[in-house]
Amino acid sequence: MKVIIVGGVAGGASCAARLRRLDEKAEILMVERGPYVSYANCGLPYHVGGVIEQESSLLVFTAQMFRAMFAIDARTNTEAISISPKKKTVDLRNATTGEVTTEKYDKLVLSPGAAPIRPPLTGIDLPGIFSVRTVPDAKVIREWIERGSSDLPEERTSAAFQTLEKPKHAVVVGGGYIGLEMAENLVHRGLEVTIVEMLDQVMAPLDPECAHLVERYLEKNGVRLALSDAVAGFKQTAGGSLEVFTKSGKSHPADIVILAIGVRPETSLAKAAGLEIGQRGGIRVDEQMRTSDPNIFAVGDAVEVKDFVTGEWSLIPLAGPANRQGRIAADVIAGRDSKFRGTQGTSVLGIFGATVAMTGANEKLLTRLGQKDFEKVYIFPNSHAGYYPGAKTIVLKVIFRKSDGRLLGAQALGLDGVEKRIDALAMAIQMGATVYDLEEAELCYAPQFGSAKDPVNFAGMVPANVLRGDMPLCHWNSVDGGFLLDVRNPPELAVESVPGAVNIPLPELRARLGELPRDREINIICRSAGRAYFATRILMQNGFKARIISGGMLSRSMLVPK
Amino acid sequence: MKVIIVGGVAGGASCAARLRRLDEKAEILMVERGPYVSYANCGLPYHVGGVIEQESSLLVFTAQMFRAMFAIDARTNTEAISISPKKKTVDLRNATTGEVTTEKYDKLVLSPGAAPIRPPLTGIDLPGIFSVRTVPDAKVIREWIERGSSDLPEERTSAAFQTLEKPKHAVVVGGGYIGLEMAENLVHRGLEVTIVEMLDQVMAPLDPECAHLVERYLEKNGVRLALSDAVAGFKQTAGGSLEVFTKSGKSHPADIVILAIGVRPETSLAKAAGLEIGQRGGIRVDEQMRTSDPNIFAVGDAVEVKDFVTGEWSLIPLAGPANRQGRIAADVIAGRDSKFRGTQGTSVLGIFGATVAMTGANEKLLTRLGQKDFEKVYIFPNSHAGYYPGAKTIVLKVIFRKSDGRLLGAQALGLDGVEKRIDALAMAIQMGATVYDLEEAELCYAPQFGSAKDPVNFAGMVPANVLRGDMPLCHWNSVDGGFLLDVRNPPELAVESVPGAVNIPLPELRARLGELPRDREINIICRSAGRAYFATRILMQNGFKARIISGGMLSRSMLVPK
Repeated sequence: MKVIIVGGVAGGASCAARLRRLDEKAEILMVERGPYVSYANCGLPYHVGGVIEQESSLLVFTAQMFRAMFAIDARTNTEAISISPKKKTVDLRNATTGEVTTEKYDKLVLSPGAAPIRPPLTGIDLPGIFSVRTVPDAKVIREWIERGSSDLPEERTSAAFQTLEKPKHAVVVGGGYIGLEMAENLVHRGLEVTIVEMLDQVMAPLDPECAHLVERYLEKNGVRLALSDAVAGFKQTAGGSLEVFTKSGKSHPADIVILAIGVRPETSLAKAAGLEIGQRGGIRVDEQMRTSDPNIFAVGDAVEVKDFVTGEWSLIPLAGPANRQGRIAADVIAGRDSKFRGTQGTSVLGIFGATVAMTGANEKLLTRLGQKDFEKVYIFPNSHAGYYPGAKTIVLKVIFRKSDGRLLGAQALGLDGVEKRIDALAMAIQMGATVYDLEEAELCYAPQFGSAKDPVNFAGMVPANVLRGDMPLCHWNSVDGGFLLDVRNPPELAVESVPGAVNIPLPELRARLGELPRDREINIICRSAGRAYFATRILMQNGFKARIISGGMLSRSMLVPK
Repeated sequence: MKVIIVGGVAGGASCAARLRRLDEKAEILMVERGPYVSYANCGLPYHVGGVIEQESSLLVFTAQMFRAMFAIDARTNTEAISISPKKKTVDLRNATTGEVTTEKYDKLVLSPGAAPIRPPLTGIDLPGIFSVRTVPDAKVIREWIERGSSDLPEERTSAAFQTLEKPKHAVVVGGGYIGLEMAENLVHRGLEVTIVEMLDQVMAPLDPECAHLVERYLEKNGVRLALSDAVAGFKQTAGGSLEVFTKSGKSHPADIVILAIGVRPETSLAKAAGLEIGQRGGIRVDEQMRTSDPNIFAVGDAVEVKDFVTGEWSLIPLAGPANRQGRIAADVIAGRDSKFRGTQGTSVLGIFGATVAMTGANEKLLTRLGQKDFEKVYIFPNSHAGYYPGAKTIVLKVIFRKSDGRLLGAQALGLDGVEKRIDALAMAIQMGATVYDLEEAELCYAPQFGSAKDPVNFAGMVPANVLRGDMPLCHWNSVDGGFLLDVRNPPELAVESVPGAVNIPLPELRARLGELPRDREINIICRSAGRAYFATRILMQNGFKARIISGGMLSRSMLVPK
């Protein structure tokens, strides 16, 4: 059996290595267009930033290692230029020699990845405008940033770089994961960074009120944001630097521009071969990673996958799923009955010391799908026991099904313990857990690590209180005119208070029930909703119509425009 | 309805607060023997160590807060001295006045906790020997440590402390969680610490080969260990310090002794009231936390609970389960149908910057129960992507059922990312996950947080490889005379090698199969078992009998005595 694998990173490399383990006799040819296989593309922004100093650190496995350890014919600088599904052949072009050869296959695996979107804008090809996809991309960006530095190796200072000034201003086009990681790394390199983003928020997989916290944090760290604006074109100035023009008519100076608008599945080869393409623009595969041609498999960023939570087809260009898909394709080619279960979009971003992580469905997506059977809560637990030094607040949005309590998704932000909670919640979603299960979760507790009631427990208890009817709730953007009761203590109100809210501190509430209306919904506020919950219980059991405002004052800044 | 709650910490306090939320009209009386309710006893060692500087930080809720916020009659310094289940009364003694009153109840909740074991040894009552259970305990230990310090407040320097020298030597009796936490905090205070432990290992819930790693780490951090030895008695020296004598005939000088031998459920009140006590010595309750008397509930460290994984009755004196049990007792008293699901023993220890965490069943327990349907693997993944600076090795032992792949337990140690993986695995165990589920887990990946194949994925993939028959395995302590093949590279062997092992580096293996025996089991070694797995696949497919030695050289130091 001869298997050809097109693409030697993440999914392709995983597939090749797994297939060799399962089938010692198979002839395996893995071709990669670029100069490296199995490199760490998730590390590229950090290589640009100098956090990962050596380029060699990014090269997890080399083609030579694939040959030596796995007896795999791994060819770099080799591009698959066409497929003939009928003849079961692939035409390969050697990028160095230009030579084209035709190779026969029994099974073909496509792992071409996704290419950075590069819109046909005026000036898009000017020097100083870069994408970040490959190791060579990172290399040229590093060189561009380091030009004019006095501590450069001689071969670089002696070149054209010598005549240029060290870059000061950067524009990052796109506020997604790579855009934000690049922004941070460019700031670390001493550049002034502006992010231009077409949407009204950064990090599209986050709901906007969570993204807005990220935006404020970016600004606090010196990143300028130009949201709801798109790049119209680029122009070179007399001094050799760039000017970035936007549709709104603004312009931003830039000595370097990073294009991080997003990625598009590389489907040209698959399309030309007549393989089915899905409605989201990725290669359509079944749960065994088989394309519409039974002898051709596809994995990684180029394929559409089923969203595990919503059942929708989606594009999830992440390394974890790509690796798992590669393994599954290898299993199936080797005659095993493995199936890909879909993806739940678990992802994480580190940014200026903070962590943003999420898993499962977000509210935007559920709303777009017309789903109504869900509710959300905002909670603000400590990363570990408050009595132990260094605890940080985690912002946690939990989305769950109203009818059965099933956990649907979670988004979290903070300075400590964030991705740990999302990992536990990701495992919960994978296993079909409900918020009632989260209530009973037994996680690590010592005061420097967590709390006797972990944030994950709270992510169950608060929704369960809602579903059991113990704690009706509303949200700041749906309060709609009820009575507002603030149960905080007066010193807290002095810092920030809500116009029109009546203040009765919780300890006085039982004695002052007579001051509250019996004919109106009472919306209860405290700092984060703990005391509001106690107050709601008191009022409900005394015959009032009462509900908390989820997240209290802490969610107010997220949901109420200033 | 009148409910009396005996014990105002963890379980009792949770029960009281929850009951008030569910029943605004109930009369709730909560009595606590000590001076404080709802204090953070898990923080006590860190208060002694000065990490938590203020005693007030430990007081999460005060009796006054219980009265003001929850309308709960919370009485400190009040001990329940007897129960009459027939009359439904409790006799309470005010520790300050000595006055005894009798209170009627409709429902009674016992949350007396567990008391530090204080064996009747010679000299046990000498000054300088302390247990660590309450806030006052921590206070006297702090004062004892700080005596002779020049920076003490005047009222203390002027007292008897003035005549004593600053303590130099400490003996901690018991190498469990509290013993180790106290040892660390005493080292931070500048003391030389010796731990005397009766067992041949510290941290009894760990399997011994994992505990031995903790022991070496303790020694590296200056803690002296006296294992397999028990204290025989204490003697005061002429200079006023102590001498700790052990059964083996040794003696250890000590200016302070911490008794951390373990805890014993406080069952005297329950026993006197005729309540059923389980075979492990805790109060027996049903899954609704009801004792053998339908009007009396018990929660927390004093009760026996069902081990979620093994189904065995066990004593799990942890804050998380205690809090959940308190909530459940309150639910049931308020007429709800809540049930405690049992506990899985998830726990964590921070020690000199390292983390040790575990969940589920350990091998010792399964072996003691006579179970044979399980296997284990040792893996050594990086805490995050190796190409990003700062990745640390995690030592991870995974125990799973052979017949169906069910995850049974996990133990992990390391300097980074340890409890995060145990939390994900704890959630997996709770939801009945198999190692096949772990293979497909979708967790947070960016290079500073994890890997595309997270340690949790490896915790599934490696066992799944074993169960699918792709990777037969054995362990260092069960190799029993097969052929030993080391597939590492010669420079690695120069550092450490296994006597009698034949070396064929993995890249040369396919060409040198003729050097291997076809009639013997070939046990394959590499650093951590990755290359050994590849080699096993090559050999198996070439007709050899081959298996890896789980964990390779990295597990060897755990399992092979020096």
